[in-house]
Amino acid sequence: MKIDVLTLFPEMFDGVFGTSILGKAREKGIVSLRAVNFRPYAGNRHNTVDDTPYGGGGGMVLKPDPIFAAVEDLLEGQAKEAASAESGQSLDEQQAPKPPRVILMCPQGETYTQKKAEELAREEHLIFICGHYEGYDERIREHLVTDELSIGDYVLTGGELPAMTVIDSVVRLLPGVLGNATSAVADSFSTGLLEHPHYTRPLDFRGWKVPDILLSGHHANIEEWRRRESLRRTLERRPDLLEHADLTIKEKEWLQSVRDQKASRDI
Amino acid sequence: MKIDVLTLFPEMFDGVFGTSILGKAREKGIVSLRAVNFRPYAGNRHNTVDDTPYGGGGGMVLKPDPIFAAVEDLLEGQAKEAASAESGQSLDEQQAPKPPRVILMCPQGETYTQKKAEELAREEHLIFICGHYEGYDERIREHLVTDELSIGDYVLTGGELPAMTVIDSVVRLLPGVLGNATSAVADSFSTGLLEHPHYTRPLDFRGWKVPDILLSGHHANIEEWRRRESLRRTLERRPDLLEHADLTIKEKEWLQSVRDQKASRDI
Repeated sequence: MKIDVLTLFPEMFDGVFGTSILGKAREKGIVSLRAVNFRPYAGNRHNTVDDTPYGGGGGMVLKPDPIFAAVEDLLEGQAKEAASAESGQSLDEQQAPKPPRVILMCPQGETYTQKKAEELAREEHLIFICGHYEGYDERIREHLVTDELSIGDYVLTGGELPAMTVIDSVVRLLPGVLGNATSAVADSFSTGLLEHPHYTRPLDFRGWKVPDILLSGHHANIEEWRRRESLRRTLERRPDLLEHADLTIKEKEWLQSVRDQKASRDI
Repeated sequence: MKIDVLTLFPEMFDGVFGTSILGKAREKGIVSLRAVNFRPYAGNRHNTVDDTPYGGGGGMVLKPDPIFAAVEDLLEGQAKEAASAESGQSLDEQQAPKPPRVILMCPQGETYTQKKAEELAREEHLIFICGHYEGYDERIREHLVTDELSIGDYVLTGGELPAMTVIDSVVRLLPGVLGNATSAVADSFSTGLLEHPHYTRPLDFRGWKVPDILLSGHHANIEEWRRRESLRRTLERRPDLLEHADLTIKEKEWLQSVRDQKASRDI
């Protein structure tokens, strides 16, 4: 997978793109990650990328021209690479490259979820556009981007951290990126419930002990305890997730009894 | 404000803590930002910070001891600094430092919102704990942390990007961090609606033109257009936000007429 990020602050990405899972995925050649400054694409004397809004009001607005020019330059580069890679292939092997997803990070975007991460992980080329405090000229949204994403309902100074967040969640899904040990942890999210509590050594830490059941060696009981703690935590913290969770009739009954107990305590 | 991050990958923070708004807030002395590796606090020969879970199953679990030791060391250092700073003050001026918020970044946490950012921005000291692929020993949650936060419903390789995200959203709210021009942009979020479209030069970009109304110079009409476009976009993309938005009766009627038009088109 190829990932390009258009930003005014490419240096923000160095630490994140070079470390841990992303760094390793890059070393293994599974993903190419580039942060590209779009300021040189301004095409004016002072490399100005923003301007005041038509109709007045505060704040600055990112101009359309530098962003369009930067995206088009990236695509042209990709087309040339593809052409030179294909020159050694037979006609049958040649394929038009899949068009990239051009993703605008903005508070007005679709709320990002794991489902969207899985969708993006099937793409060949992602281009992220990150603004910084400014708004975006509407023509960028209308005529250039394929997706507008928001990572949550809070205000940030720019789209850089949201882009890194989306990239991290997508790259960890690519085949070969996570080892078996870590995949197993990830699988626990696929239940649609919050995770059950975890305990490791020491058995007794400052007088706080590991629950006896986890030391029982009785696998079925442990599994049942974990599933119930997972249900209990989801009910307490994120009841909205239970609406879409895949539950047995017995589990639904048990959840109802927990709710009833709580209701009678609250009276 | 003082912000400490406990992580196994402090180098991930360099680019983000040194750039743009966060970098400037740091230079101005408004915030101190530190990323601290908690591995040296393991206190065992191989600096092991995780171990297999009691009760079996895949994945690794972060041990409680290194995290507790790292947080306690940070607090001890803070107490000493406070004591030496106070030695030159009279008794009246001495104040016990406000206890820090100890924040665990995890998918099981409370969903982070702008309201929480505003709450955290009133604190003196924030300590973030970031795990990386592993789960956390439950005793860390129960006996050390004050808040568990999740930035959204997607799976990441660690708590580092979520911590950076929370930090960015909190620091930009601190007095003196944002200039006037950028504060104005931020204010537009306080309406609880998505922002209206923005346009800047050029007037005609590849045949796509700026709407005439924005060139009319008629301030009241422009304001009305912007408010309606903001309402329309919120209705289309995030109708959930309209439940809590502060709307006039006229605006509610207008929204209903847009909904009715859409319904009649869909028949």
